[in-house]
Amino acid sequence: MWRNCVRLAKGLGRSAVLRPDPKVSRCGVVRGLSPTAPCSPTAPCSLLWNSVTWLSQARQSKDYALPNSSWSQGMMDLYNRFLEMCKDGTWKRIPSYGNSVDHIPESLKLAPEKEQKETRLFSRNMDTEGLGFEYAMFLNPSEKRMVCLFQPGPYLEGHTGFAHGGSTATIIDSTIGGCAIFVAGRVMTANLSINYRNPIPLGSVVLVDSKVDQVEGRKVFLSCQVRSIDGQTLHAEATALFIQLNSTKSLQQQMSSQ
Amino acid sequence: MWRNCVRLAKGLGRSAVLRPDPKVSRCGVVRGLSPTAPCSPTAPCSLLWNSVTWLSQARQSKDYALPNSSWSQGMMDLYNRFLEMCKDGTWKRIPSYGNSVDHIPESLKLAPEKEQKETRLFSRNMDTEGLGFEYAMFLNPSEKRMVCLFQPGPYLEGHTGFAHGGSTATIIDSTIGGCAIFVAGRVMTANLSINYRNPIPLGSVVLVDSKVDQVEGRKVFLSCQVRSIDGQTLHAEATALFIQLNSTKSLQQQMSSQ
Repeated sequence: MWRNCVRLAKGLGRSAVLRPDPKVSRCGVVRGLSPTAPCSPTAPCSLLWNSVTWLSQARQSKDYALPNSSWSQGMMDLYNRFLEMCKDGTWKRIPSYGNSVDHIPESLKLAPEKEQKETRLFSRNMDTEGLGFEYAMFLNPSEKRMVCLFQPGPYLEGHTGFAHGGSTATIIDSTIGGCAIFVAGRVMTANLSINYRNPIPLGSVVLVDSKVDQVEGRKVFLSCQVRSIDGQTLHAEATALFIQLNSTKSLQQQMSSQ
Repeated sequence: MWRNCVRLAKGLGRSAVLRPDPKVSRCGVVRGLSPTAPCSPTAPCSLLWNSVTWLSQARQSKDYALPNSSWSQGMMDLYNRFLEMCKDGTWKRIPSYGNSVDHIPESLKLAPEKEQKETRLFSRNMDTEGLGFEYAMFLNPSEKRMVCLFQPGPYLEGHTGFAHGGSTATIIDSTIGGCAIFVAGRVMTANLSINYRNPIPLGSVVLVDSKVDQVEGRKVFLSCQVRSIDGQTLHAEATALFIQLNSTKSLQQQMSSQ
């Protein structure tokens, strides 16, 4: 099974591996990343690596991207394979929290964000493990690529026995968005176009594989494929445009002026 | 507020009103609609009206598309206005259940569908009112148009204080899908492309307004706008392609051969 997954990765033409410079990884980290800094496809590794650290530097909340008893053997096997690849720094596991605020470092939070307590991140809003979105993301910094191991639970149903198209859109948006965050800091979806090829059975495990295609100023163009873990079934393909946010403007202002 | 909503409707160029023939509405109904029948933009009113009846002819389960204490005054006002327009048959309220199976008439169910009990429709998977998707849909048969009054709850968060792009995709997919069901019976999303214009604040009320643009054989092309109820803010625009399903083939077979 894993061989097929690797074949899928190679098939996507993303075989180059570049380990981040350990000196860079120890520098300013979040403080070194300006949320208003322009991004470019030739962004230095320091910027990229700082973004990675940002993704994993939230306050101590429950990390939902860790195995639980609802995960199938296929999900566990894939997760352990990626963990193995994290050891040499090629991949990095991305934690996931139940609230949007928990993903933002204290130094970059706006006042209203600190006050939100009763909200939940959409993809982590279920109290019972296994019913909704079960997923874990891994980032490959050198390839500007984010993968998500996704096991849709029974509360994500659309057609009988299959994941709702909206739940597929959600996990794609989240994965591809994580990839955009990596190169551009705080971002927002401007366009998401999904071709649904084969429905995803509830309880199955799929690999959501996204990458940055191009960066133009504040625009980040990305693409994504959702495949079965044996690589044989293409469930969905997507393209997306994300806009880098300037924290001094409101979200509405920024999206209106794009 | 309602005047603005009507202005929005007129602005979309959908002012024609045609009441369904009462004789037609009393004929074969579900039995009269073959899920394999080709659909066309000139489909007779009987087919259209039968589809409407199909949407509302599920077994008796809890209807989630009725007002509850979490609905804001703005949501209630808009709901009551649409109810008023249902009285002359121009619009029809569409019920909504917690399970996909409950939306399918017994005569059209496949064996596996009858056995699914532990699943929940993605957009109705919350036990507590007000936390997730609060919505009600209304269909205008003569205009082949479906609107959805949507109040996103605090568990649908993406950016702090705003609805997740995936939740917006979900309500668009559901609304536009309901519109496709109306003209083609059982359908499946093949493509969904969304331009996000302005983020939707949690707790606000928006109008998701979808229509059928074209039907070519088994393909149904649709478009959609998501606006604030005063019509002043465009939150999102979308286009979609749905494929009419043939119940004798599996979903995978049909999507692979499209």
